[in-house]
Amino acid sequence: MTTWCRFQTANRTGYGMVDGDKVTAVDGNPLGDFQPTGATYPLDAVKLLVPVVPPTFYCVGVNYRHHIVEMAKLRNAAPVFPGRPDIGYRANNALIAHDEDIVKPADAGDEFQYEGELVAVIGKRCRNASRDQALDCVFGWTIGNDVSERTWQQSDRTLWRAKNSDTFKPMGPWIVTGLDPNAMQTVIRVNGRETDRFATNDMIFDTADYIAEVSKYCTLEPGDVMWMGTDGLPQNIKPGDSVEIEISGIGVLRNRVVQG
Amino acid sequence: MTTWCRFQTANRTGYGMVDGDKVTAVDGNPLGDFQPTGATYPLDAVKLLVPVVPPTFYCVGVNYRHHIVEMAKLRNAAPVFPGRPDIGYRANNALIAHDEDIVKPADAGDEFQYEGELVAVIGKRCRNASRDQALDCVFGWTIGNDVSERTWQQSDRTLWRAKNSDTFKPMGPWIVTGLDPNAMQTVIRVNGRETDRFATNDMIFDTADYIAEVSKYCTLEPGDVMWMGTDGLPQNIKPGDSVEIEISGIGVLRNRVVQG
Repeated sequence: MTTWCRFQTANRTGYGMVDGDKVTAVDGNPLGDFQPTGATYPLDAVKLLVPVVPPTFYCVGVNYRHHIVEMAKLRNAAPVFPGRPDIGYRANNALIAHDEDIVKPADAGDEFQYEGELVAVIGKRCRNASRDQALDCVFGWTIGNDVSERTWQQSDRTLWRAKNSDTFKPMGPWIVTGLDPNAMQTVIRVNGRETDRFATNDMIFDTADYIAEVSKYCTLEPGDVMWMGTDGLPQNIKPGDSVEIEISGIGVLRNRVVQG
Repeated sequence: MTTWCRFQTANRTGYGMVDGDKVTAVDGNPLGDFQPTGATYPLDAVKLLVPVVPPTFYCVGVNYRHHIVEMAKLRNAAPVFPGRPDIGYRANNALIAHDEDIVKPADAGDEFQYEGELVAVIGKRCRNASRDQALDCVFGWTIGNDVSERTWQQSDRTLWRAKNSDTFKPMGPWIVTGLDPNAMQTVIRVNGRETDRFATNDMIFDTADYIAEVSKYCTLEPGDVMWMGTDGLPQNIKPGDSVEIEISGIGVLRNRVVQG
């Protein structure tokens, strides 16, 4: 189990290993070749960056039974469960790091919501992986907040501004290797108050299912990320709010909402 | 007007300027800093690469009146014209260069089709561009083939394998700067026979409209690409076929279809 962050100081931008309250810098990239350096920094003195900028940014739309039921009720519609693992996409412009601000656009409505998601970071090139081989392609795990504007999500032909406006995709704080997704709990807090708690891997199709299916058609590359969807009934967030998404074994992704 | 290609030889991978049948290599990147080198190569002795791998890969879904009418007829549906420029996305895993092969998956159906598209390559960071400023953000223009499997496009919740299976996104052959989109014609040929011809800029919302709208919410970055949609009624293509998409002022993007 190693905790990898990407970080910035006055003199250095790159990857490091987090151990307690220290970061030990490496040259290179843990997804490829790297060499340890002697340099260490106090964790609270570095700025954490988005842990990886993906070549392709995959995201699962609907993947938890309870979430589908609750969201359908809000629309007075019958729940529709996915029959197969159809992956979707998000966009790199929207990525921000742990502790950076989610900017709520001036014309966004009240139904501006978080979605707490497990993120698989792909570690090696992968095509036609079996379900049994699939998790061997995963380098490690991080956390995503799939921030969503629900009126745009209903009105627009695509999810572009509903889910991909600048700052709508917090990801971090870092990547942790060697974890078991079955042992994880996701807990979401707004201004310190718990609003959701669910078993992270209680998915309709899990990460191995998605990697096996996607890699039948698409080559996964090192650094690609796959956001795995959310459970529960996300709540509205507004400027001034602080959103924390905690996944056991990984850590806490925290971002404040500000008015755009 | 400059023609920029990305190319590979036994000793070199990088950008170059195309002039007639010669490529003059540069160090660096025309989208950022570059320095001329003395090295020239015969154009027919280099392998052309995808001219840019975008940080974000934007694509317009439906953007020509005639195409919408013809596609709706095939579905026995009324045509629905977009009320606003909602952008969509494609995925980098699917990109291939000029002269590389489109692999038709073994389980793809007969309705496996080309779509010939103008591609705008963004040259500078851009947020909140007015319509008047929008084309200043464009570095140059290239050609895309938005290869599509129509049964998957109808059956799957997203467009992931219908439009983003490996090799489904030929782009190239190169990027040409300083062109006027209003002066362009798109001509598509299958095995040398012309199957479509349309005024490239006869769009419902043009490139400036899309850049102005998208940049209200999303920061465009150098190297981002925006594929602008297709007109006409795309035809089926099958293994053995050669597809050429020609846009006047840019050149010809040619790819052969092979069986996967």
